[in-house]
Order: sequence, then C-alpha cells, then structure tokens
Amino acid sequence: MCIANSVCGNAFRGLAECEDEMALAENEAELYKIKLMAPVFDKRDKLIEKIPFFWNIALTQHSDFSNYVRASDFKYIEAIKKIVVKPLALEDEECTARDFQITIEFNEIKGDLKAQHVSKVFKIEKDVSKILIKKNRTAEDDELDADLGFLTSEPVNIDWPKSYDNINPELISDKSTPEGKKNYRTGMKTFFAWFKWTGLKPGKEFPNGDALANLFNEELYPYCVKYYTEAQRDVMDESDGDSEDDSDAPLDLDLEEVNDEEGSDSKHLNKKTKLQ
Amino acid sequence: MCIANSVCGNAFRGLAECEDEMALAENEAELYKIKLMAPVFDKRDKLIEKIPFFWNIALTQHSDFSNYVRASDFKYIEAIKKIVVKPLALEDEECTARDFQITIEFNEIKGDLKAQHVSKVFKIEKDVSKILIKKNRTAEDDELDADLGFLTSEPVNIDWPKSYDNINPELISDKSTPEGKKNYRTGMKTFFAWFKWTGLKPGKEFPNGDALANLFNEELYPYCVKYYTEAQRDVMDESDGDSEDDSDAPLDLDLEEVNDEEGSDSKHLNKKTKLQ
Repeated sequence: MCIANSVCGNAFRGLAECEDEMALAENEAELYKIKLMAPVFDKRDKLIEKIPFFWNIALTQHSDFSNYVRASDFKYIEAIKKIVVKPLALEDEECTARDFQITIEFNEIKGDLKAQHVSKVFKIEKDVSKILIKKNRTAEDDELDADLGFLTSEPVNIDWPKSYDNINPELISDKSTPEGKKNYRTGMKTFFAWFKWTGLKPGKEFPNGDALANLFNEELYPYCVKYYTEAQRDVMDESDGDSEDDSDAPLDLDLEEVNDEEGSDSKHLNKKTKLQ
Repeated sequence: MCIANSVCGNAFRGLAECEDEMALAENEAELYKIKLMAPVFDKRDKLIEKIPFFWNIALTQHSDFSNYVRASDFKYIEAIKKIVVKPLALEDEECTARDFQITIEFNEIKGDLKAQHVSKVFKIEKDVSKILIKKNRTAEDDELDADLGFLTSEPVNIDWPKSYDNINPELISDKSTPEGKKNYRTGMKTFFAWFKWTGLKPGKEFPNGDALANLFNEELYPYCVKYYTEAQRDVMDESDGDSEDDSDAPLDLDLEEVNDEEGSDSKHLNKKTKLQ
C-alpha cells in the first residue's frame, strides 16, 4: 500500500521523533503548571489548617480512599491535621514532573497515637532490575515498567498507635506461628504500613502503595476542597431545616453558623469547587 | 468545633478565592501546553499523511470509537485521509483552552462518497438557556452545566454517501410514516449526522456528539500513533513468521517490509508510543 517503503520508513522514524518531542513538551508543560500552582497551594494549605476536621471530612468523602485502608484506621485518619503534596521538581531540577513528596501531620491521641509528621518521597524508576520480588511478574510487566516507569519510595519511620501493638510488624515476636502470620498480614494492610512501602517488593508490603500515593497526588490533595464541599452539601441536605439536631452534627453546626454569618460563602465555595 | 466562626468563614472565603486562582492557573498552564505542542502536532500531521490507512487503523483500534458510529460507517471511516484537531486558543485569544476545531478530510469513493474536508468548531457554553430541548433535564443538570460549562457546536454541511440516501435526513420526504421515522432515526445515528450536532437539542440529534468530539480531542488525535502502533503490533503477533499470508494483510506487508529495511524503527516507535 505504501508508494515506496522508504517513504513509510522515514515517516515512522519521524513519528518516533515526534513522540519524543511530545513527551519532552508534556514534561515542560507539567513543570510550568507546577510552578504556577505552587503559590496557590501554599496559600490554600494555610487556610485549610484553620478548618477543623478538614482532612478527615475530605478523605472520607472520596469514594476510593476507604479501599486502601482498614476500617480501624479511620480513628487515626481523624487525627490527621495536615496533608501537603509537593512536586519534587520545585526544589530539585533533577526530578521529573512526576516525582513528589507527601507530608502527613497527625494530632496526638492521648495514650494511643503520638503527635508526629512524616514525609514520604515518591520517584519514578525505570530500572526494573531493582524490583526484588519478580514472582507474578510477566516479561510484559517488565517491558511496560521499563518504558513508562514505575513508582518507588524509600521506607520512612512512623510511630504506630498503641492499639495496633498486636499487628505492628516490628512488635510481632514470632511471624512463623499462624497467629503471628495472621497479625503480620493484617498489620501490613493498615495505613501505617504504607509509610514503609517501597514498590520493589510486590506482594510482600502494603498492597497498591503506588495507587494510594497517586490518589493523594492526583485527586485527594488537588481537589480536597471539592470533596470537603461535597461532604458539607450532603450533611446540609440531610439535616435541611431541623436545626435542633445541629448539636449532634458539629460539621453541620459550623457551616450553618458560618453561612448565617458569612452569607453565600459556602454556596460560592460550592460553585467554585465544581470548576475543578 | 471552630474557635470562632469568623475564622472558618474567612477561611472558606479564602478557599473559594484559591479555587478561582487554581482555575485561572490551570487555564494558563493549558494554553502554555497548547503552544508548546502545536509545532510538534503540525510536523506529525505531515508525516501521518504519508502512511496509508493511518486513520482507519488508528480509529478502529480504539476500543470506544466503534460505540459512536454505525457498523456501516466503517466503509467511510476507511476513506478518511486526514484528521486534525486544533485548539481555537492558538488563533483566537478570546477562546479558552477547552475550545477546539476538528477537521476531517475524506477521499473520494467513486459513485458513493465525494472527496471533501469538513471543519467543525466546538466551544464551551455556560448559558443553559440556550439548550432548546429541556426534556429529561434536571435542575441539577442545569446547575452543573452552568458551572462547568457544556460543549456546543455550529452545524456544518457534509455530503452524505449515495448509499445512505434512504436514511439521509435531508432526503427523507415524509418523516411521519413509520418507515420515514425509522430511517430518520437510523440516519441520525451515523457518523455523518454528527457534523450537524449542536449540543442544544439533546435527544433530537446525533447522540453523545460531545463525547465523540472529546474522544477526538483528548484521545484519538493526541495518541493516534499509540493506537496505530498497537494495531501494528497485534497484526504482527497474529501473522508471526508466516510471510506467505502477507499479501492478504496490506498493513502487515507494509510494516514487515519497512522493518526489514529500516531496522528497529517500528520497535523504536512502539517504545516511544508507550510514553504517551
């Protein structure tokens, strides 16, 4: 069908060059966007700190988040005071637009959880030889990961809640007993185990740690105000008009009073967040 | 839970401002990307023209495309010589990064389809009062479309294939007869009816015309080389090693010969396209 194969051949070579140029242009555009958004995110982080339970409300509103943590973790999700996702390219020119750092700050839960903030760095890796556990990996997985890159992370320390002592992997004395195995496996599925996730030991660490990291980076952090506002709207819809129940609904109480006082603020907020 | 409601109130007002600033920053970043990509797309358009059946192969490879057109349309999809999607913001500063123009060029099919190229412009509209048919629309649909905007388009003329005379809406003399109704409805579902789609008459024009436009703008055009390459790989996998069948597989024939001649070009292409 080709008039001359060399014509097609040159065209294919040219298309491959275009794909390279497009990938570079996309990275440059992404870096431009990162620099443009950074000051707005900084401003937003400071405002969010003033709103009680903001992160608990925003995270629990997202339909996917609960699939990555255990039900018992939500007590500790409620203790999250601050979440910040920063593209590494802002400080390190060696990094691509796809590398980022997630910082999570926990309030103290007396006698159970220590007040702490933990930062975890996520970088795109293309060297599949670094993957330590090859079990269940096909040659196509390797080829794809080598081409597209895959997310990796250094393990970081976090103080686990006291209530998790029995499933805390570092406190399980004997992992060989059925009981020990069971507790170890359970512990590896908690939100706290995610901080040790590396991306190099599939099946032997927190499951889908990369997907949870991407969820924070691509949805939970950039659109947190949208999720918070949706939750606010839901609460208002539920308790429409019966203010004597407000005392049982702190979130609702706050917002109702804010609305009385601040007029159409929250409607305004609703509208804007839809733009996301 | 708020220390003082005015604190929360100010925080909410500040967050609403942040959402505005983020929307503006996102549009600016998108415009920057558009300008960065434009020369690469122009270069790519010229190369694609040299590859026979490129668009037929790329479009039919996409899993969704076939959901928007009728099986009988594929004869005419095969006649597509060129597809170009251009962001309107490149030429008109009044346009947002979300407005675009799709140009499709058809080869002649003797005695059936005229050689022609048709350009259709798609713009984001926020004035829901312009929607002429409100049936099956909820107040929430209106609120959402007014906030997020919805896609609209001016109808454009295209010469329909002779073989479609019986279902060509403009040639159906009496649409009131059962036969006329049936043919009219069938005609409105062909790819050719999409060119008259406005987005203002839901239920009375080509169905999901906006989704098809977005499919061209967001997937089929930017990643066409990826789809073409996937199709090429599939054909090669199927006919691995039996070259006597190549004569029945024009696509395969071209590429096999190109590969023999051009060495690792097509592998190179495969690799690059995965970066998309």
